[in-house]
Amino acid sequence: MHRIPVGVLGASGYAGRELCGLISRHPRLSLAFASANEQRGKTAELPFGGTVDFIATEDAPLNRATLVFSALPHGASKAWVEMASTAGAKVVDLSSDLRIGNVRESGSCSVPYGLTEAKRATVKTADIVANPGCYPTAILLGLLPLLEQGLVAKGATISVSAASGVTGAGFNPRPDLLFGEVTENFRAYAAGNTHQHLSEMRALLAELAVDADLLFTPHLLPVARGILATMTVPLTRGLADPLQPWKVRYANEPFVELVAHPPELRHVAHRNVVRIAVLPVAHVRTPTLLVFSAIDNLVKGASGQAVQNANLMLGLDETIGLPA
Amino acid sequence: MHRIPVGVLGASGYAGRELCGLISRHPRLSLAFASANEQRGKTAELPFGGTVDFIATEDAPLNRATLVFSALPHGASKAWVEMASTAGAKVVDLSSDLRIGNVRESGSCSVPYGLTEAKRATVKTADIVANPGCYPTAILLGLLPLLEQGLVAKGATISVSAASGVTGAGFNPRPDLLFGEVTENFRAYAAGNTHQHLSEMRALLAELAVDADLLFTPHLLPVARGILATMTVPLTRGLADPLQPWKVRYANEPFVELVAHPPELRHVAHRNVVRIAVLPVAHVRTPTLLVFSAIDNLVKGASGQAVQNANLMLGLDETIGLPA
Amino acid sequence: MHRIPVGVLGASGYAGRELCGLISRHPRLSLAFASANEQRGKTAELPFGGTVDFIATEDAPLNRATLVFSALPHGASKAWVEMASTAGAKVVDLSSDLRIGNVRESGSCSVPYGLTEAKRATVKTADIVANPGCYPTAILLGLLPLLEQGLVAKGATISVSAASGVTGAGFNPRPDLLFGEVTENFRAYAAGNTHQHLSEMRALLAELAVDADLLFTPHLLPVARGILATMTVPLTRGLADPLQPWKVRYANEPFVELVAHPPELRHVAHRNVVRIAVLPVAHVRTPTLLVFSAIDNLVKGASGQAVQNANLMLGLDETIGLPA
Amino acid sequence: MHRIPVGVLGASGYAGRELCGLISRHPRLSLAFASANEQRGKTAELPFGGTVDFIATEDAPLNRATLVFSALPHGASKAWVEMASTAGAKVVDLSSDLRIGNVRESGSCSVPYGLTEAKRATVKTADIVANPGCYPTAILLGLLPLLEQGLVAKGATISVSAASGVTGAGFNPRPDLLFGEVTENFRAYAAGNTHQHLSEMRALLAELAVDADLLFTPHLLPVARGILATMTVPLTRGLADPLQPWKVRYANEPFVELVAHPPELRHVAHRNVVRIAVLPVAHVRTPTLLVFSAIDNLVKGASGQAVQNANLMLGLDETIGLPA
Repeated sequence: MHRIPVGVLGASGYAGRELCGLISRHPRLSLAFASANEQRGKTAELPFGGTVDFIATEDAPLNRATLVFSALPHGASKAWVEMASTAGAKVVDLSSDLRIGNVRESGSCSVPYGLTEAKRATVKTADIVANPGCYPTAILLGLLPLLEQGLVAKGATISVSAASGVTGAGFNPRPDLLFGEVTENFRAYAAGNTHQHLSEMRALLAELAVDADLLFTPHLLPVARGILATMTVPLTRGLADPLQPWKVRYANEPFVELVAHPPELRHVAHRNVVRIAVLPVAHVRTPTLLVFSAIDNLVKGASGQAVQNANLMLGLDETIGLPA
Repeated sequence: MHRIPVGVLGASGYAGRELCGLISRHPRLSLAFASANEQRGKTAELPFGGTVDFIATEDAPLNRATLVFSALPHGASKAWVEMASTAGAKVVDLSSDLRIGNVRESGSCSVPYGLTEAKRATVKTADIVANPGCYPTAILLGLLPLLEQGLVAKGATISVSAASGVTGAGFNPRPDLLFGEVTENFRAYAAGNTHQHLSEMRALLAELAVDADLLFTPHLLPVARGILATMTVPLTRGLADPLQPWKVRYANEPFVELVAHPPELRHVAHRNVVRIAVLPVAHVRTPTLLVFSAIDNLVKGASGQAVQNANLMLGLDETIGLPA
Repeated sequence: MHRIPVGVLGASGYAGRELCGLISRHPRLSLAFASANEQRGKTAELPFGGTVDFIATEDAPLNRATLVFSALPHGASKAWVEMASTAGAKVVDLSSDLRIGNVRESGSCSVPYGLTEAKRATVKTADIVANPGCYPTAILLGLLPLLEQGLVAKGATISVSAASGVTGAGFNPRPDLLFGEVTENFRAYAAGNTHQHLSEMRALLAELAVDADLLFTPHLLPVARGILATMTVPLTRGLADPLQPWKVRYANEPFVELVAHPPELRHVAHRNVVRIAVLPVAHVRTPTLLVFSAIDNLVKGASGQAVQNANLMLGLDETIGLPA
Repeated sequence: MHRIPVGVLGASGYAGRELCGLISRHPRLSLAFASANEQRGKTAELPFGGTVDFIATEDAPLNRATLVFSALPHGASKAWVEMASTAGAKVVDLSSDLRIGNVRESGSCSVPYGLTEAKRATVKTADIVANPGCYPTAILLGLLPLLEQGLVAKGATISVSAASGVTGAGFNPRPDLLFGEVTENFRAYAAGNTHQHLSEMRALLAELAVDADLLFTPHLLPVARGILATMTVPLTRGLADPLQPWKVRYANEPFVELVAHPPELRHVAHRNVVRIAVLPVAHVRTPTLLVFSAIDNLVKGASGQAVQNANLMLGLDETIGLPA
């Protein structure tokens, strides 16, 4: 069967290599090019076997790809997204450059926010999609049924304590990401509600007219991959069946798993799923739910969701080539 | 110098061996006996060198010890605490049997709750002390200045997301604690505010007349030791200097470290300290503080605090023999 | 397309669940049953998604399976292999009960040793195959070209230092396999050439008339999966191109990867491959080669190789359903 | 009691900070200065508490220290060792610049090799000591009794497979030392007998007139600290009591532990000891011993041994301030 040529810009990082691996196993896509300036001319191994050869980003034959994924760093991505689009390719941008909540400052026109389960119709017809951040994917998919149905108490604070594996920080040789610094350790960062991903989450809440605040505290886990968000949500009222909003909202979603017990990172690793558990809480007088949401930050939180969006944009079955 | 003989009941678990190690390096204590029924007759290695020989608990010469530590399992400890006390020894009980919030059910008389920084005066003169749980130690020491000064908003929910290393679950060969199940994993447990440690925390809040709820969600970390509690606290009012209550309350505490950035587990490992950071939060309309509290669950969260209490009960310098 | 029904006995351990996962993703096999006495009636999650329901082993409908995999413990497996065979099923036995070097004691008739790359022709026509141990798979595939071509110095000692992830020890709640005991640790075991896998390796050397000794020292790694064998082999003579014997012997092998640098565990994880590197050594006067061999102990070292053998026994493409 | 002022050059790496920590807890030493060019003006936390302030190396008041430790990088250290010596300080050099086997090339005069248990008398009277590498410390202390007593078979190859925690590679932000690359991984490096530490080991063998070859293969472990060496040694003859040479040689050594079972990394962590086990081997026709040797690479393998040497050079008790 004919394979659709796609290209990857910024392919040498963790998300980029994960993307090349997914493309290499995708039955309908073929990799037209993979760029990585610092590793131009080099070859890298892919997860689950196979290799990829890197070319310089400036040498990338943008016009040979029907769709281009940009996994370039924040700030550097936007210009290349525009070039790829001008060259006639559809684009999925994994950077934050074009995401809601970030673009207003630069005055850019908004492109659809590729949180697939929330924006499927818009993604299908888009030429450019801004792929969500990894934390927002876990958190927003966990909260979406409450947000859309107006169930969050007005003026309340949704307290989100989340933890991510180190690949979430990218393939950066930072001293604080060395094995010797991370093993047997655990710590919060961007504390005080200052994480860069907050803006896209707040933007989606605003779009959904949710009158509540998010307090988001990320932590660094001594694991390679995975994000778990533990969320305390004050409700407008108690729910007879707490899980009901999720059952209804996600009834036909191929990549959403509702589970009875708090989800574990290992059960979502290497998979393009979000696993959500919702629990009532004892000993608390105000109506409150505990929502847990777990993803693989490199798959559903980045490259898998990017392929999911690309599948839609290319008119393919949304689930094809994705590990459920 | 004369060494004071102390004994350890239930010495073969993680807390018990940590305790034997601390005693072996303590300049004023000597180990009179260490009991462990399943390992009677065996010898175990201690952290940082040295060994300990186990006898059967029923063979423990209680009357030869000036003070007895009980690290026996919950439920089994209480009877041995009473026997040791009857034999004339002072007792520090590391189980939950005699802690506030647990004793009411059994109708026992209350003994001082050994959260040293909160109960120093009572501990000094006590014959029996109930050593706090590891999570409560981290959480209550983190919150204490707010609790004591009535700064928590009435009726509010204090949301506590905490994570512990596996030694917090004890030296139990449970399948879910195997290396193959814990590595590269992260998960919540006792979700929905059902953890056994909640009762002693709620009891201390009640004692301090704090009219607020705790929502406590523990998680299992792929590390051996350490607890980090991340706490969202709604306040009665905004504070000009958020750290002020802690600075005042803990001005002269030898084992409390106030730090400017979120504390890391590795900086409290093997030490009898609690490290606390307090941060204001942006983008949240109600007065709210983020409080982080980190301890080594086996030291400040168990055996170190037990020695700290024992030092006071024996009239020794509170800090002697403890790694700060 | 028609799927061939296969069953798994002893399916709840690490190898058993890996096997069920491989079968669930195999395009030509279907899982007729999965037995696990202690977990009868329970459901387990599989790697990469999906679940499996366990029945009691005694309730396994052996006659409904064209082929049965036995992942029962050593000692318990043999009787069930015979029952499954009597019921008309072909059998792949993952235990050591029927492996060369082990059967002589019990006087059983030998069945083919399923080291596929060494025994392909025999496996194809066999009714029962004894799947090799994980260490022997890594070690023997690494050494095979030298062994078959008589290149090992007579009377010499092949020194094998190997290290395995904890899943190699099975899903056993042994205290020494707890996370708290394995993390940040490393140790040898079965030291002094006493490991149970030695007999099948010595038997294969004898079969190939290799007049040399193996000195095998296994170690326990703080990783979940993977085996790396580091082998020092004294040769009869120096080789102009050290890699030549491997290139020739493995020219058409789909699951053997010859690499220029020492192989890493992460590059074979979740894959049915063995990755081998061969290096000359400096500063040593006698002709000597260093051979490195890496596998995923649960895939190529157990369940993947079992499916590889089953594919051959069932007349399927050897590589089908296997992650290369 | 008077404390002797000592300085540390290159104090910001793993060995440097460990050294500062040991000095801060040493009852007879005080830290006169700690230099670290890239972190000048910054403060770092020490293991087990406390902090250290870094100055520029060029600002180090060498003449205020009775003894200077240099933990500067290989190549950069030698010049500073000479300056410190000229300024009147005794020096312990932790780099390889002045070690036996390395100095010949540059024509420098040899300084004593600070493998304390082998060179105690020379160290005591030395002005400068070259502290051994971490691997050589583990390996040579393990082999010393056989080497000194001529028990290694002539012309034989001693096969050494060793594994180290990542701190052995220093506090270098290399991509291959990131947590995401090391966790769940294991690999050899410097394969083919090419590691830089080989020269000092070969030099000591030559000095002891041992006519045998070393084949040394290091591996990178997913742990922070610790080295385990697994060594196969062909002997001139079988030994009635294999452990006898070690018992005799190390009868009065305060930091050598002979154990009956293969040593574990966790039992030597944070301690200045080497733990050695010696086992006979079955199924091998030539007289052969297995020798295991384990150390903490940052303590006995670097900073602890440096303090041990400094104690001797300063006329102090050799064991003072060192965690046994």
